[in-house]
Amino acid sequence: MAGRERLQGVFVPNIVPLDAAGEIHEAELRRYVDWMIARGVHGLYPNGSTGEFTRFTPAERRRIIEIIVDQAAGRVPILAGAAEANVRETLAACEHYHRLGARAVAIVSPFYYRLSPDNVYAYFREIGRNTPIDVTLYNIPMFASPIDVATIQRLSEECERIVGIKDSSGDLSQMVRMIAAVRPNRPDFSFLCGWDTVLMPMLLIGCDGGTNASAGIVPEITMKLYEETVAGHLEEAKALQYRLTRWFDAMLSGGDFPEGFRTALGLRGIRTGVGRQPLSEKQQAAMRQLAETLGKWLAEEGIER
Amino acid sequence: MAGRERLQGVFVPNIVPLDAAGEIHEAELRRYVDWMIARGVHGLYPNGSTGEFTRFTPAERRRIIEIIVDQAAGRVPILAGAAEANVRETLAACEHYHRLGARAVAIVSPFYYRLSPDNVYAYFREIGRNTPIDVTLYNIPMFASPIDVATIQRLSEECERIVGIKDSSGDLSQMVRMIAAVRPNRPDFSFLCGWDTVLMPMLLIGCDGGTNASAGIVPEITMKLYEETVAGHLEEAKALQYRLTRWFDAMLSGGDFPEGFRTALGLRGIRTGVGRQPLSEKQQAAMRQLAETLGKWLAEEGIER
Amino acid sequence: MAGRERLQGVFVPNIVPLDAAGEIHEAELRRYVDWMIARGVHGLYPNGSTGEFTRFTPAERRRIIEIIVDQAAGRVPILAGAAEANVRETLAACEHYHRLGARAVAIVSPFYYRLSPDNVYAYFREIGRNTPIDVTLYNIPMFASPIDVATIQRLSEECERIVGIKDSSGDLSQMVRMIAAVRPNRPDFSFLCGWDTVLMPMLLIGCDGGTNASAGIVPEITMKLYEETVAGHLEEAKALQYRLTRWFDAMLSGGDFPEGFRTALGLRGIRTGVGRQPLSEKQQAAMRQLAETLGKWLAEEGIER
Amino acid sequence: MAGRERLQGVFVPNIVPLDAAGEIHEAELRRYVDWMIARGVHGLYPNGSTGEFTRFTPAERRRIIEIIVDQAAGRVPILAGAAEANVRETLAACEHYHRLGARAVAIVSPFYYRLSPDNVYAYFREIGRNTPIDVTLYNIPMFASPIDVATIQRLSEECERIVGIKDSSGDLSQMVRMIAAVRPNRPDFSFLCGWDTVLMPMLLIGCDGGTNASAGIVPEITMKLYEETVAGHLEEAKALQYRLTRWFDAMLSGGDFPEGFRTALGLRGIRTGVGRQPLSEKQQAAMRQLAETLGKWLAEEGIER
Repeated sequence: MAGRERLQGVFVPNIVPLDAAGEIHEAELRRYVDWMIARGVHGLYPNGSTGEFTRFTPAERRRIIEIIVDQAAGRVPILAGAAEANVRETLAACEHYHRLGARAVAIVSPFYYRLSPDNVYAYFREIGRNTPIDVTLYNIPMFASPIDVATIQRLSEECERIVGIKDSSGDLSQMVRMIAAVRPNRPDFSFLCGWDTVLMPMLLIGCDGGTNASAGIVPEITMKLYEETVAGHLEEAKALQYRLTRWFDAMLSGGDFPEGFRTALGLRGIRTGVGRQPLSEKQQAAMRQLAETLGKWLAEEGIER
Repeated sequence: MAGRERLQGVFVPNIVPLDAAGEIHEAELRRYVDWMIARGVHGLYPNGSTGEFTRFTPAERRRIIEIIVDQAAGRVPILAGAAEANVRETLAACEHYHRLGARAVAIVSPFYYRLSPDNVYAYFREIGRNTPIDVTLYNIPMFASPIDVATIQRLSEECERIVGIKDSSGDLSQMVRMIAAVRPNRPDFSFLCGWDTVLMPMLLIGCDGGTNASAGIVPEITMKLYEETVAGHLEEAKALQYRLTRWFDAMLSGGDFPEGFRTALGLRGIRTGVGRQPLSEKQQAAMRQLAETLGKWLAEEGIER
Repeated sequence: MAGRERLQGVFVPNIVPLDAAGEIHEAELRRYVDWMIARGVHGLYPNGSTGEFTRFTPAERRRIIEIIVDQAAGRVPILAGAAEANVRETLAACEHYHRLGARAVAIVSPFYYRLSPDNVYAYFREIGRNTPIDVTLYNIPMFASPIDVATIQRLSEECERIVGIKDSSGDLSQMVRMIAAVRPNRPDFSFLCGWDTVLMPMLLIGCDGGTNASAGIVPEITMKLYEETVAGHLEEAKALQYRLTRWFDAMLSGGDFPEGFRTALGLRGIRTGVGRQPLSEKQQAAMRQLAETLGKWLAEEGIER
Repeated sequence: MAGRERLQGVFVPNIVPLDAAGEIHEAELRRYVDWMIARGVHGLYPNGSTGEFTRFTPAERRRIIEIIVDQAAGRVPILAGAAEANVRETLAACEHYHRLGARAVAIVSPFYYRLSPDNVYAYFREIGRNTPIDVTLYNIPMFASPIDVATIQRLSEECERIVGIKDSSGDLSQMVRMIAAVRPNRPDFSFLCGWDTVLMPMLLIGCDGGTNASAGIVPEITMKLYEETVAGHLEEAKALQYRLTRWFDAMLSGGDFPEGFRTALGLRGIRTGVGRQPLSEKQQAAMRQLAETLGKWLAEEGIER
């Protein structure tokens, strides 16, 4: 892939606003895309875990990408989540997103079943050999079959269409091992950190950017953290990492993921609607409590609501 | 549900044969249904984990149930796996399978995301209140959000349409706790064991039956084990449990689930085709090795190939 | 070991009463030994996990065995926990307990470090080749390096002084695998279940007995459960298993192990004293609450306090 | 603790050389202490996990500290591992090491039993209130009861004698949470990273130093990494972190911990002797293979053997 630029910067795994009927709220989604771009995010990553891709139908997942690619209109690159029920369906999605003009797709490792490393490799090899669009591996061991270092190395050597990995394990040691194994042979391969509480150290250890849900909620903090870190302003970056960790932890532990992020986004003026996973009364109360806390933090931080 | 009979006996979570193009092989699936019924299974459980429900599209999942209900033609009850992307889609599937004449549906706990017990409850309550067909909860903590004892108890007390639980944890202690918590108030509630290596002790401790993949491969062993156990022939049952454990372990650990079961089924004369999850060369070799071993076992056991 | 009898029945991993100074309360320990023997337990198992062997010094551990062997005076066999800091110290303990007249020792797999199966094997092989007294392996994967099936098989084949395994995983499937792997070559090898909530099914699947903490607290239930099970009275045994599970769960989850058992034992009139692990105020309150609950259960069950 | 200086820099959890009889090899241990000090380590940390404290008797543990304090003779501070069987024994060790002149003790969270956070707190509070010497908490969740953020915060607020934490989880996010919770109230509290593969990012995020086994094997790399990092030479530090990770991973995964470190130390000319945990033939072969690999690396790195 001579001349191809490495994927870089912060891509936002965005939440999808729903309307009163529980359908995709297209107008609000378009407004949200503009809102994020206006706040400096480097790219969008729809149909990620924060985007609740498993809770939409295959047709809805395509619709989400269509709206976002159309609304972004080339202002920022789109990394489209493309995992479907099996290799054939996933490749069909890759083709569709390629035609639409997405920059690349992200494909999560097979989930539900926990596959052995060998079959994770076989799965991505099949995709890597047949995709018309660049592919980013998506490693999130708490939800899906883990992608180990040897697998990443083999895939990076055999499939030039596989151009990066998005890692949401938050494991710095593992990231060092992955970069050490891959970069010598594939300088164009991109390493993106999907765990916001370690974004600064991940960038310092060699990552090219991140896919960070917090950048869709408080881009004022996340984007600034990215900039200060790459500029080498370590004290400023460290302080921002501490602030971001407080936010990320609150949104993550306030309720079942990604409810805390949805609640927080509502505070920023985006009408997110009610999520598709029913919430217990207790969890609804927790969300109201979280909204109160985060509202205070916004004020403290001087971020407009 | 006065007068309603408790779900009982061995339901088979069946594999779906595929043709050369990777599509559902309807003729072979129908032949397989007859094959199982001829060997005495008590019911069928399509779209379970062994049936690889996540690797089919929503339309294919419906087609599988249609074929099986039609072919069974009332000879055995059908427990239809009905989990879809969200509550609305799942309820639509429940309605469809109800119209087709399924005896009940089985709904796996939400997966990918790991929900808290409170939201697992909220999810099933929403379904339990709106389903037109009896629902069996499906607990498989290695793949999906665990359903804990308190959640089962609440659901059993609040939703009479929820009539049972299929537990694939293999955890005897947990089964005792569940039965102790539920049976006093819901004598009609059924407890099915989905882990074949503990079928005998689970029946002795109070289970009503099982959903057992081995019954679709070597019904000669599994069904006999069930019968000897309920007849109180403990020595015979124990010997059969040891034989079944050997089979189950070999099929389970020979490769990524459910490849070992697919390979074994091929030995029984069912043309299973090639699965949708690509297999590495190493795994393919492991499957050939497994076929050789199991072929010998069939001969040793005097089971026709 | 021709003519040697298989270890059989229920051995009690007993708590060690402490006096006001926190020292071993010898008189009360002797009284407790008599109390248990009077209630029909088949053997004693001092320096087990319930006996908090890690919280005593090496000298205290020896003293505990000396007192118990002396007090039992041959009325029941003693299975002495003999794990010390390393192989040499452990073998010295084996020799000492052999001289005292213990029936066998139980040696937990190395803990703190998690050893690979290969080194667990090397550890027990060294002990098995040099011990003057019969050895029971002690598998408790939640606390110590797991002992896997292949390791048990190798050790059983190579070391005739290793005569049994005490398994506290509560995993029925694993027990079936262990018995299937070992019994054909070592009919004298004993399998003891250390997880009280599955004692009945473990016995039915082939275990020879158990090491059951509940038998030191409510022998009225545990010993009766054992007897009804081996007599083949399944309905009675099942009902007792449900009762025992309620007790075991309450004592186990009421506080950090084994505090719930100490509290319960106090209700039976044994002066246990205060444990060596400091308890938080919250945990002390939980213990008072547990005592109240268990006191009611004793009354309900008609067991003298 | 006005005026007290925060613990800082790299402390080495040293291996203990054994002689042909398996006893502590005092002369070689003294030589090793000098060897490390000559290579610039900032402190020593005997009786840590690398030092195999659980495989020595209480008397041997004391002897190890006596030798090391004596040999260091004030040239570097000693952080003495002081965990014993229970609070009383541990406090006795604290007193002894205080008299000897150790700078502080490190006390691992209770192990074998997994305590709840509440009782971990109760344990350290009892120690913190009675110790005559500064205490460093030792968190190593893979081997011992985890010490959570709330517990550290409470202890830091209530016990001024508790002056730091040594964390071997390698979890950056957790370290950020700990520092955020403690530092505002306890600027004298020290945070030490015990996981060498993340030493650079841990220092950048706010740690004061580390307890790093690699510094006892290849101090040429570890100490240089520390210095470059604190000097803000990020590119140099990053390159060193990649080198160190390769070494640490090889020593860690080559065999059961800490065998790989013992083998590596032998290459540096320290006569380590044979460890007390018996090794299988397979593991011994793995150690020979590791020695060959590491020997090449030493040559490549230009480090004297």
